[in-house]
Amino acid sequence: MDILLTVFNYLGLFVFAISGAAAGMRKRADLFGIAVLAFAAACCGGIIRDVLIGSLPPENILSWQPAATSAAAALATVFFYPQLVERFNNPVQVFDAIGLGLFTVLGVEKALDFGIGPVWAVLLGMITAIGGGMLRDILLANLPQVLRGEVYATASILGGSIVVAGHLWPVIPEQYTTVSGAAVCIVLRCLTIKYHWQIPVPRITRK
Amino acid sequence: MDILLTVFNYLGLFVFAISGAAAGMRKRADLFGIAVLAFAAACCGGIIRDVLIGSLPPENILSWQPAATSAAAALATVFFYPQLVERFNNPVQVFDAIGLGLFTVLGVEKALDFGIGPVWAVLLGMITAIGGGMLRDILLANLPQVLRGEVYATASILGGSIVVAGHLWPVIPEQYTTVSGAAVCIVLRCLTIKYHWQIPVPRITRK
Amino acid sequence: MDILLTVFNYLGLFVFAISGAAAGMRKRADLFGIAVLAFAAACCGGIIRDVLIGSLPPENILSWQPAATSAAAALATVFFYPQLVERFNNPVQVFDAIGLGLFTVLGVEKALDFGIGPVWAVLLGMITAIGGGMLRDILLANLPQVLRGEVYATASILGGSIVVAGHLWPVIPEQYTTVSGAAVCIVLRCLTIKYHWQIPVPRITRK
Repeated sequence: MDILLTVFNYLGLFVFAISGAAAGMRKRADLFGIAVLAFAAACCGGIIRDVLIGSLPPENILSWQPAATSAAAALATVFFYPQLVERFNNPVQVFDAIGLGLFTVLGVEKALDFGIGPVWAVLLGMITAIGGGMLRDILLANLPQVLRGEVYATASILGGSIVVAGHLWPVIPEQYTTVSGAAVCIVLRCLTIKYHWQIPVPRITRK
Repeated sequence: MDILLTVFNYLGLFVFAISGAAAGMRKRADLFGIAVLAFAAACCGGIIRDVLIGSLPPENILSWQPAATSAAAALATVFFYPQLVERFNNPVQVFDAIGLGLFTVLGVEKALDFGIGPVWAVLLGMITAIGGGMLRDILLANLPQVLRGEVYATASILGGSIVVAGHLWPVIPEQYTTVSGAAVCIVLRCLTIKYHWQIPVPRITRK
Repeated sequence: MDILLTVFNYLGLFVFAISGAAAGMRKRADLFGIAVLAFAAACCGGIIRDVLIGSLPPENILSWQPAATSAAAALATVFFYPQLVERFNNPVQVFDAIGLGLFTVLGVEKALDFGIGPVWAVLLGMITAIGGGMLRDILLANLPQVLRGEVYATASILGGSIVVAGHLWPVIPEQYTTVSGAAVCIVLRCLTIKYHWQIPVPRITRK
């Protein structure tokens, strides 16, 4: 189980890093900029969570592997951009959905371990999962993608709520709720990609 | 006194959250984005202050009420945008001025409690009061409003300086300087709204 | 040696603050905005490093001198913009290179003191040196300069690696590797300014 979680964690880091590197290439960043954007997208959600719960230094800084994974993903993106990003756009989005589900669950559990209450545990799971992508967009001076359009953060909130519910009412063994939290988030996100579900954008009405 | 401070704190959170939600609606963010912008505007000044003084986890994360207040303000903005933001633009600005004064004073006092020196206590009060609005503008990829134009942060600095002065030279009972710090900040800001006082924008002169 | 380091530190703060203030003047920020941008450019790299290694409150907040240095540099920029920034553009860039080298070395050493591993010590040195400039550009809603174009962060990484290498294999007395790390970074950056070395910008190729 632990090995599986680690494998999924690095898979999530890798796919999120590709999203950062690809965004950098589209904005004509240099090699260094591409590496920074890959790192920001992959690792900074977890770093923000760790700063907020006071787990310093953040775990993504305590070892060199997360940064190395981001750098490897950045290199892969530079060399295989058409193959990785354009041709297989859909598989990348599926991996991204897996990363979303996994980072949510890992974030919620770490927050609960640090004694954070249920509402904020869910929100910190979401920050872990979407914070990197938001920083990537801020660095590129774009309106963060997650703030408009498709069901994305909402999937993370639903998945995280299941994990927290399992923690509060431990009638079901915790590993089941953990796995179902991740699964709900991933499936919901994949269905969104398929059916283009949208969060409503409220209109400004004038009397 | 404590109850009054708490009421004013939530009033400040609510009004700052409206400013974030309204900015999100104008940029056509979705419902989730509007909630994030409301939270960023209301709670992130205090969170930045708490990270900097090492008070982790930040108080806005230790309880669910600040996030819930932001969410309620976001919902209210979505349903009552014309009434809240357009028709009553001036009252909202007055509440915003109250929030500015109160967040300044609360920020200065917390910084002093954590042993921060006088200059940085004033600056941390200002960060508490204006940090949320800056993050709101960064998320929307705007030049932060506070960096150009009206007297805003300056009012916070003046109010905060009064609180710090009262702490350093305790000839006057501290509650008086606390209240006058907030009052000076609020009145100065309200006069600015009325008379459109501007901070000078230096011109680049060429010889 | 310690006095020299302190002098160089404040020189670095001053020159980085000029870069922030000058960027603010070009974007027509007001006096307060110019002061904030000067502070962000000069002090926030070190603040980000201190938050990440858990050295809270950050040293740039524990004393009033860094903020005062930034404010002085902001004032100097406002009054002497043509002389400081336009006529002597090259000397300013040389000072900026000195700041880059020095902040890198100071950042690496502080990270090693806090028990950070070698890879992240180098990266934290780089964050100390370039973080302020990145925040300046984010506040101005620009694509961070460091993400595209000239050799800048790379010089910091090379210089920092020398310091870390000297720390890991202490055959050479540590002050020598510290000084050479700073020197390599500064010389490399100055040569870049002279010869306009570029980090390659990868092109998106389509099959």
